[in-house]
Parts: sequence; C-alpha cells; structure tokens
Amino acid sequence: MRIARFSIDGNVAFGAVEGDKPDELVLDIIKGIPFADFELSGTKVPLGKVRLLPPVLPNKVVAFGRNYAEHAKELGNEVPDAPFAFFKPSTSVIGPGDDIQYPSFSNELHHEAELAVVIGRMCREVPRERVKDVILGYTCANDVTARDVQKREKQWARAKGFDSSCPLGPWVETDLDLAAVSEGITIQCTVNGQQRQLGRTSEMTHSVEDLIVNITEAMTLLPGDVILTGTPAGVGPLNVGDEVAVTIEGIGTLTNKVIKRG
Amino acid sequence: MRIARFSIDGNVAFGAVEGDKPDELVLDIIKGIPFADFELSGTKVPLGKVRLLPPVLPNKVVAFGRNYAEHAKELGNEVPDAPFAFFKPSTSVIGPGDDIQYPSFSNELHHEAELAVVIGRMCREVPRERVKDVILGYTCANDVTARDVQKREKQWARAKGFDSSCPLGPWVETDLDLAAVSEGITIQCTVNGQQRQLGRTSEMTHSVEDLIVNITEAMTLLPGDVILTGTPAGVGPLNVGDEVAVTIEGIGTLTNKVIKRG
Repeated sequence: MRIARFSIDGNVAFGAVEGDKPDELVLDIIKGIPFADFELSGTKVPLGKVRLLPPVLPNKVVAFGRNYAEHAKELGNEVPDAPFAFFKPSTSVIGPGDDIQYPSFSNELHHEAELAVVIGRMCREVPRERVKDVILGYTCANDVTARDVQKREKQWARAKGFDSSCPLGPWVETDLDLAAVSEGITIQCTVNGQQRQLGRTSEMTHSVEDLIVNITEAMTLLPGDVILTGTPAGVGPLNVGDEVAVTIEGIGTLTNKVIKRG
Repeated sequence: MRIARFSIDGNVAFGAVEGDKPDELVLDIIKGIPFADFELSGTKVPLGKVRLLPPVLPNKVVAFGRNYAEHAKELGNEVPDAPFAFFKPSTSVIGPGDDIQYPSFSNELHHEAELAVVIGRMCREVPRERVKDVILGYTCANDVTARDVQKREKQWARAKGFDSSCPLGPWVETDLDLAAVSEGITIQCTVNGQQRQLGRTSEMTHSVEDLIVNITEAMTLLPGDVILTGTPAGVGPLNVGDEVAVTIEGIGTLTNKVIKRG
C-alpha cells in the first residue's frame, strides 16, 4: 500500500493511493493513523485535487554517512568500517513539490538521493531479526547538503540541517520489503531531467538491518522517525531554478524545485 | 521567575517556583503555557510533593562544540574560528532527578556542564539586537558524552544523542538576562560532591548572541527548543552509581544519578 499524507480544504489526512497512471491516481481516505490499526473509509479524492505533504512528520531524521563506497570515494573520503550517523531536524523536512530554499550561507548546494526508511513503532535495542517489524515502509529522500559548509564545519548541523534540506515523499510504500532492498532496487536522481545519480540499494556498505541495529543500540526511535540510508555516487550541484527528482524503484518520484531564499 | 514543569496525580503542568529555602519551595500552578500569555492560578503545591519533569520538551536541542578555549585544549583540540553545531534529539532529554543510563556501547562516559538557553518563540534569521526577544530563559544542562564513541565516530549522533544523554533542569529562570551571562555567571559540575568543572560564561569564545545568529541563519527554532552553549574545562568520567550535579549561578542545581542500563 502507498500511504500519502495530504491537506484538503484545510484538513490534514492520510490516504491510500490507488491507480497506476500518474494522472489518474486517487486517494482513499484513511480512518485513523498508519501507525496503529486503521481502515480505508471508501471516500475517495483525486490526488490531483489535494496538496501532498511530507508523508510523515518525523520527530527525528537519523541519516547515515558514506554508506555507498563509490560515493565516499568520489568526495575523497574513506569508506567507514562502522556506520556513523547524524541528525536532520524536523524543521528541515518538506514534502513533494515543496521548494528547496538555497541557503544564504552556502555557495555549493548538492543533491543526495537516498532511500528513507519510515519507522512504524517505538523501538530500542532492536535485534536484527526484528528489524522488519519496526518498519512501516519506505519513501524517497533528498539529503540536500551545503557542501562548502560541510567541509568547513566539523559537525554538520548547519550544512545538512537547514530549513528545506530534507525533502521526503511522495508517499510511504508499505509493500516493499527488506529482502527486495537487500537484493537491490534502483535509486536515481535527475536534475532538470538529466541523470546525475544512479545506484542500487544492494551497494550499501551497511544494510538497513545494520543501520537500525546500530542506532537503536543508542536511542529510542518513535513512530514516524525516518532513517536515511546513504547516497550513491554522482552527487553534484543544485542551482536556483533547478528541478531535482529522486526516483526509487517500486516507490515513486519525489520532485522539488530550488528557489532563492525569499 | 523560575518556571518548572511537573507531574502531579498523573497530570502535567507548569508552575512558578516560589521561596528560597530548598526544602520550602512551592509551585504556583500556571494557567496556560509559558510560551504565550499566561497567569498564575494562585493554587500552590509544595515542590517536594511533585515530580519535576524536564522544564521543556524541546523539538530539537542544538549544541555548540568547543566554545570554551580551555576545554577545547584539554581534549587536544583547536579552538574553532567559527561556531559549529550538532543536535541532541528529543529522545535524549531527561529531567532533574532522572537517571542517566550508562550506554552499553561505551566504556568512557563524560559529564559536560552547560548553560542551556530556552527559546520562547518561533524564529529564524534573528538579528543580533533581537536575540534577547526570542529567549524565554535559561536552565542547566549536562551534555553527557560517550567520549570513546565520539573519538571513533565522525559524526556524534550516537556519542551525544543516546537516550538520557541530555539532562535539563531544574527549571527555566526567566529573570536572568544576556548582559549577566555576558558579564559571567559561574557554571560548576560536581561528581559525588567533588568539584570537577568550574567556569564562567564570560569565557565563551562565541557569545549567546553569536550562537543564535549562527544557527537561525540556517534553521527555524521553535518554542521550547534548547541551545547548549558549550562546556568549560574539567570534563571527566562518570561511573555507575555516581551522582552528578550541574549548578549555575542564578539558576539552580540539576542533579542526576548514573545507573546501569536496565
């Protein structure tokens, strides 16, 4: 099931996305929330009539660095032996179609297409064999990065945590499973229609299981929290006016435009 | 005014702390919330009869590294030219009297006593002269750090973001002002009654104004968000069974015990 979050007539709701043709998608409004028992209401609205929102409002986004060897190398970095994580704050999250605001303190903005794991239940110290039980589903993410700031500031709160630096969407795909991610689904990033990044999730140095075991050894994850699993090679600049799209096989496409900060 | 957050009979409320003698403090229950217009109800409860909670529930905690030169040097680090920030997640926050759980993945836990700034209103791109307007008040913080993990993981999400790594309290002092912080108030940390850290806020490399200008250049701060302003020299180990106390002049004392993770 593809679960979207949207606003219509000033109300916010979740809905199950039905249909295959992009122009004919329909939302079946969900009664309840996707983190608990819920049912479909049968009340349907065309997806084109609503504004899609970030599919979840995470309390925290935990992102892992350099989890694709080719990407680590392209920036001249070593591939880390163990996963390492940083945070993107809730205030950095935007939804599909929202604008990425080019930050005033950077001259080198980069896209980083990533598979995002959406956590479905509160959890801590998750054993490897239980990882599948704490995942609600998957969505697309763009770990937008002020590369120049990242190079000069030892910790990355500003470089990767500025407002609008975490586009998420378009929805959460709950039918994708860990086995498929492990076997490899493609992640692609285009800028103005031109391909920049292309990778497969099977290239991750540390698997989704590794990452969730690693982070929950230290901290509690809450329903709606998001794990970013690293970006494949091909990162590059974003400029004002660009349209950047992250497409993940079996999920969908997350598109955002870059604007000058207003 | 000292504003505490507490639970009594299963309800959570804010209260103004009245009185001077530690054993005779009373809470005047607040109608409303401290981030908007509020009034005192006149209904009073002895502080000894309630459980104090973290004085705020921050959406995010933004912490600045190496902001006291003597502390940077004691760990063999350079004093940074510009501030750099990292995040501690909401799940790391505990209140006065709550236990610090020694993490399973570390063998070197350290205390770091810090002045915490509590944000009172939503803000972004705050000009220096308006910084005072976005501050609700100040409280004590302990930026508890798994030093060994910090040394081996490039980004500090696990080392400084594990559950219980951010004790805050005992309350928010709203009468302290930026001029007093700038002139210097003392920050002290004791472990089992023995002094470990002693510094003055006037020793900060980057002032509270610098830090808030720096972070709001990049991101929106929300009411209840917390800024940690760095720790003075004297950091050192915490062991299971230790009682660690952070005392800041004009605010109060935040005490927590270290326990084995249950």
